[in-house]
Amino acid sequence: MRRVYLDNASTTPLAPEVRKAMMPYLGEVYGNPSSLHDWGNTAREAVEAARAKVAQLIGADAGEIIFTASGSESNNFALKGLALALQGKGKHLVVSAIEHFSVLNSARTLEKWGFELSLVPVDKYGVVDPEAVRKSIRKDTILVSIMHANGEVGTIEPVEEIAKITREMGVVLHTDAVASVGNIPVDIKALGVDVLSLAGNQFYGPMGIGALWVRKGVRITPLLDGGVQEGGRRAGTENVPAIVGLGKAAELAGKEMPTRMEHLTKLRDRLLSELPDKIDHVVVTGHPQNRLPSNTSFCIRFIEGEAMLLLLDSQGIAVSSGSACTSRALKASHVLIAMGLSHEIAQGSLLFSFGMDNTEEDVDYVLEVLPGIVDRLRQMSPLYAKFVKSGKGGN
Amino acid sequence: MRRVYLDNASTTPLAPEVRKAMMPYLGEVYGNPSSLHDWGNTAREAVEAARAKVAQLIGADAGEIIFTASGSESNNFALKGLALALQGKGKHLVVSAIEHFSVLNSARTLEKWGFELSLVPVDKYGVVDPEAVRKSIRKDTILVSIMHANGEVGTIEPVEEIAKITREMGVVLHTDAVASVGNIPVDIKALGVDVLSLAGNQFYGPMGIGALWVRKGVRITPLLDGGVQEGGRRAGTENVPAIVGLGKAAELAGKEMPTRMEHLTKLRDRLLSELPDKIDHVVVTGHPQNRLPSNTSFCIRFIEGEAMLLLLDSQGIAVSSGSACTSRALKASHVLIAMGLSHEIAQGSLLFSFGMDNTEEDVDYVLEVLPGIVDRLRQMSPLYAKFVKSGKGGN
Repeated sequence: MRRVYLDNASTTPLAPEVRKAMMPYLGEVYGNPSSLHDWGNTAREAVEAARAKVAQLIGADAGEIIFTASGSESNNFALKGLALALQGKGKHLVVSAIEHFSVLNSARTLEKWGFELSLVPVDKYGVVDPEAVRKSIRKDTILVSIMHANGEVGTIEPVEEIAKITREMGVVLHTDAVASVGNIPVDIKALGVDVLSLAGNQFYGPMGIGALWVRKGVRITPLLDGGVQEGGRRAGTENVPAIVGLGKAAELAGKEMPTRMEHLTKLRDRLLSELPDKIDHVVVTGHPQNRLPSNTSFCIRFIEGEAMLLLLDSQGIAVSSGSACTSRALKASHVLIAMGLSHEIAQGSLLFSFGMDNTEEDVDYVLEVLPGIVDRLRQMSPLYAKFVKSGKGGN
Repeated sequence: MRRVYLDNASTTPLAPEVRKAMMPYLGEVYGNPSSLHDWGNTAREAVEAARAKVAQLIGADAGEIIFTASGSESNNFALKGLALALQGKGKHLVVSAIEHFSVLNSARTLEKWGFELSLVPVDKYGVVDPEAVRKSIRKDTILVSIMHANGEVGTIEPVEEIAKITREMGVVLHTDAVASVGNIPVDIKALGVDVLSLAGNQFYGPMGIGALWVRKGVRITPLLDGGVQEGGRRAGTENVPAIVGLGKAAELAGKEMPTRMEHLTKLRDRLLSELPDKIDHVVVTGHPQNRLPSNTSFCIRFIEGEAMLLLLDSQGIAVSSGSACTSRALKASHVLIAMGLSHEIAQGSLLFSFGMDNTEEDVDYVLEVLPGIVDRLRQMSPLYAKFVKSGKGGN
């Protein structure tokens, strides 16, 4: 059976070049970067070389990069670390309604710790209105966190415009750029943000490694106390092989970005335009143009996304129905609900996320297999029967 | 030049079997364990198989193991997560004076958050007196954290006896077993603790992976919010290759423990007994018998540990002078000071930690090289000159 992985938003495969770069650090080169001897020095130099590469990818200074173990840790660190460091100035936070749960739930935890939270709504494409951010900022607002791109629906947010507002109003701006860094150009100077999260397994780098970029001068309280690693900002022995891998992934992404974007956009646009021709009652979710090159997301009405996902899996196709981090919770996506979709439509969510290994033939295969699956499921769907009986047409 | 790595307390090399077990997960096998398709299922099964192996090593149930990214994260999670979950019952914590900084500094952070902290002293061997723990427990004590073995001086603590007291008094007991798990037998039922930290890079497993064992029924608040990974207790995409590696390292440690302990104890005991014969004014630190098989720690008087370390490095020998996590801070070890050593003696600290790759020839080489280094440094030492002038003998 053909096997087609279209779930790169959940995790990308490791690039062979990244694996190759990591290998010595899983073998003959070992040592703790904090150790003051040859083994330690070698490990430390590898870590610092990787730090420079990650910094370069986003136009930052190496000294501003703090390695973490995941995008989720970066987001927790940003929200909690900034809130705790800045609480002397106020206790109000602003985040969008479509943030990743590592941002949203960190904000909820901060509410329990006595902070106040405002959620900024999004439009039907999942776009945050910069003016809505402006209106939500109060005198005691210390932090705004708006994601750069949404991994579930692909929408790219107007972070530059939001940054102009937060700068003008003197509020720190964090952006969760986990879905975007390595996949589209991300330059911290162009974006104008103060703090940014990224993760290796979103752009052909290793699992278990992320980073937080913190603009020099922005105060942040450590989330992990202990040794003096990462300039005293994040304790724990550095994960040398994964850091080296992240550096290599950053280097590759910088070099190959135009090729990657062209390849992925081509596959994405074909599926985005051809699937609605093959299947009735399909709602494309996310912004029609301003979206991640890899992201193709739909809601297919009158069926559960989970059921489609499982039948696609039985045909060798891997997709997801919303975010991998919450897929086991089996709830309608908070992102789609925030975009104004009904629970009924949101339940039929399907996310195809392309990667560099995918081909035109993979799109052909999806277009060949999915309509039959949808037909089969609709025949069993009481919702669809009701819809047909009511004689309503269109989407 | 001969190269001899004697800094396994800072990080162990990866066992070849562990690397081999990880390789497929750095290549053809990828996928997010939270994803509901074949790729996800394969990754999830690998994670669960590893969890079972880690659980087996310490005699626990697999469902009680939470994977983290390091021993430091496990300790932060334990201290902060337990304190936050239990604060309704009281806000007093008890930890020993010789804990790792990831425990001590987490406790200091909790003090800032309104908790109260009592530090239990140790004797000259670095042993915590269980009766001192008993005396420090108050009505509002919610958590005691005493390490299982100290990585700097090797002393193994009477955790079983302390656990009898905490159980009797109804207080949760955490033990930082990062230095011991995989190196000496650790059984959570025999120890009687409630929560235990461990880390992969301390027993030939990968960097960037640790675990926290939490006895079923013990409440803990997540440190990392987000998705529902690890039963909702630790968000972030699972680091599949590192988890698989930790599982393999646990399996190997279980099988090879008697052989490993015998090999390491032999090397340790030779260096412990022969070095003081070759060099004057050597103070063996840590407990003479109850110590980690790999650990050989000394203070060599009238010289700085850092200077010896750098000259040993120039001869190809890697050692440390205290904990790697704080080596860049260049302060006298808080462990040695808590054991009653003067700052002057504590500055001369040297830690040789053996690993499975070490041989008798490595011990020969140290015994050949170190006395010359000590002589050279003492000739330049004003402290030594003063000592000689004063005409005092002995240690």
